Amino acid sequence: PAAPAPRRPGLTEFVGTAIGDTIGLVIANVDPKLHAAMGLDAKYRSIGILSGRVGAGPHIMAVDEAVKATNTEVISIELPRDTKGGAGHGSLILLGAEEVSDARRAIEVALKDLARTFGDVYANDAGHIELQYTARASLACQKAFNAPVGRAFGLCVGAPAGIGVQMVDAAVKSADVDLIGLASPAKGTSFSNEVIGFFSGDAGAVRQAIITAREVGCRLLGSLGAEPASLGTPYI
Amino acid sequence: PAAPAPRRPGLTEFVGTAIGDTIGLVIANVDPKLHAAMGLDAKYRSIGILSGRVGAGPHIMAVDEAVKATNTEVISIELPRDTKGGAGHGSLILLGAEEVSDARRAIEVALKDLARTFGDVYANDAGHIELQYTARASLACQKAFNAPVGRAFGLCVGAPAGIGVQMVDAAVKSADVDLIGLASPAKGTSFSNEVIGFFSGDAGAVRQAIITAREVGCRLLGSLGAEPASLGTPYI
Amino acid sequence: PAAPAPRRPGLTEFVGTAIGDTIGLVIANVDPKLHAAMGLDAKYRSIGILSGRVGAGPHIMAVDEAVKATNTEVISIELPRDTKGGAGHGSLILLGAEEVSDARRAIEVALKDLARTFGDVYANDAGHIELQYTARASLACQKAFNAPVGRAFGLCVGAPAGIGVQMVDAAVKSADVDLIGLASPAKGTSFSNEVIGFFSGDAGAVRQAIITAREVGCRLLGSLGAEPASLGTPYI
Repeated sequence: PAAPAPRRPGLTEFVGTAIGDTIGLVIANVDPKLHAAMGLDAKYRSIGILSGRVGAGPHIMAVDEAVKATNTEVISIELPRDTKGGAGHGSLILLGAEEVSDARRAIEVALKDLARTFGDVYANDAGHIELQYTARASLACQKAFNAPVGRAFGLCVGAPAGIGVQMVDAAVKSADVDLIGLASPAKGTSFSNEVIGFFSGDAGAVRQAIITAREVGCRLLGSLGAEPASLGTPYI
Repeated sequence: PAAPAPRRPGLTEFVGTAIGDTIGLVIANVDPKLHAAMGLDAKYRSIGILSGRVGAGPHIMAVDEAVKATNTEVISIELPRDTKGGAGHGSLILLGAEEVSDARRAIEVALKDLARTFGDVYANDAGHIELQYTARASLACQKAFNAPVGRAFGLCVGAPAGIGVQMVDAAVKSADVDLIGLASPAKGTSFSNEVIGFFSGDAGAVRQAIITAREVGCRLLGSLGAEPASLGTPYI
Repeated sequence: PAAPAPRRPGLTEFVGTAIGDTIGLVIANVDPKLHAAMGLDAKYRSIGILSGRVGAGPHIMAVDEAVKATNTEVISIELPRDTKGGAGHGSLILLGAEEVSDARRAIEVALKDLARTFGDVYANDAGHIELQYTARASLACQKAFNAPVGRAFGLCVGAPAGIGVQMVDAAVKSADVDLIGLASPAKGTSFSNEVIGFFSGDAGAVRQAIITAREVGCRLLGSLGAEPASLGTPYI
């Protein structure tokens, strides 16, 4: 779903909105009671918040770029079971910063990058598939997916979940990559109807695995309904 | 969503329906096999059931009034991930009673009170916010939220969850209240896309915190879509 | 929802589609990396996959017939919180086989049987109820529901969950059956808005209990909206 034209709510904490019913926010000085309830590290006075109804992979990949580009750290990544009746997750990601300007800049970068990271999400009425790829994983991918920092990393998602099993099998058969993780409805997801494969390795191999998964996933998802359509512009 | 005009199903166990696809039921003599499977206390021959697709806070607050007014006890409160594609919970609440007339009366009170407790739920296509307040918390609030019995209690919900973080921060900065709990997609919810703050303290302070949370939440949710609309008549 | 006419995706792994946004797939030689990540028994070179957005009971019952009829075993049954905004589950079921022809045959049997096992699912806008019955439970029912193999087995589902409580109570009062399990939003489901009763015993008694549950469930669900409609042709 495209983001509505942002209506400014007139709060300094508001940063912006983006695709996926995503809102970006900052808090310059987190109240001590909230700070304690969230178990935040004392060094973070300021936090950035990226929160959406639709999408988890796109948000984590966008934050991965944001933390590379700014003086912020990933505090937490939580994945509600959402997508507004779809088969997947939404996301709540908190970033910590010593200065609110850093938190704001990180959220701005992430909101802008979502237009890219939704590019290889394909959906029809029956479900969705998602592909993500980075030549150099950073700290958000490490925290969320146990991705080795600095190496190429990719993931593939299929929903309904059985499509994801096929995508992962095709991906690991197509290129010499490490399968560093596997998530399914009862293991590693929030009961979403997805199977997700996580891949690390040489850039060319990871990219090849992801492209193979995309080809298989689109064809299988298409058997359940309309031709799956990208939610943006494919980037992989 | 408004409740349909109740069509009587012709069963003595039926009490009524209400907003949120809510049904109220009683069982006069729970079958011993079901009694055992549910692990019920032997003293409850009768149970009352309040069950809905949309809403958890409204139902718990309504039951809080019902147990004050009747000779019943809260047996269990379970929160499915529901709201029919929305970001929140549904609810299944069981009350225990020695006499079925008490159980029926409690469910009648709760069903009727839902018109009030949905009054500070505001929604648009992107999500919802919810506020609840009572000058004197009773046993349902204690069981569900660890609220101190007899003191003023309030809660605020924001969905998508990031809006809830801001609401809680604004609330605790606006008044001298105790933040007695915090729930988020991965902690204390059923993977809903919500952050929820729970507040206890002096009546005026709790009410002020909730009103501040409502103001912030409505403005932020409005940035993602239409002006959030109350599902009833605001009562706080 | 009726299945769309299957569009063949041109992959040998594809078996077919069915009601409930269900896809059936096979993998002849599971990649060793995926084999390890899934923790599969070494003897299964081939797997069959039954995966859908809407329905868990129908899929498990269909697989129960499929494993009776083929040389396959149930590897895993995972229940996402799904039904596309509805109150229940989707499903991901993996079957193991030594020969891919066995896996394919099992998935074909299961896909075809879904037309039957959706026959006693009744839905309206407010929720759904579901009934299942078999005169002789097999290994899928055992794995998913702890059903004694070879005995009659049945289940009843009510959503919103409170309807399920009434259905179970009426069922056990109507016939001398064993209540071998009870699932609810917080216990034994993936936070679905359902209460589910599992019954074992003599064939006539189990069938009577299920028929009673259907009668009560349809009447209660109808009080929340339109007359509940079967998603297929009732078989019980």
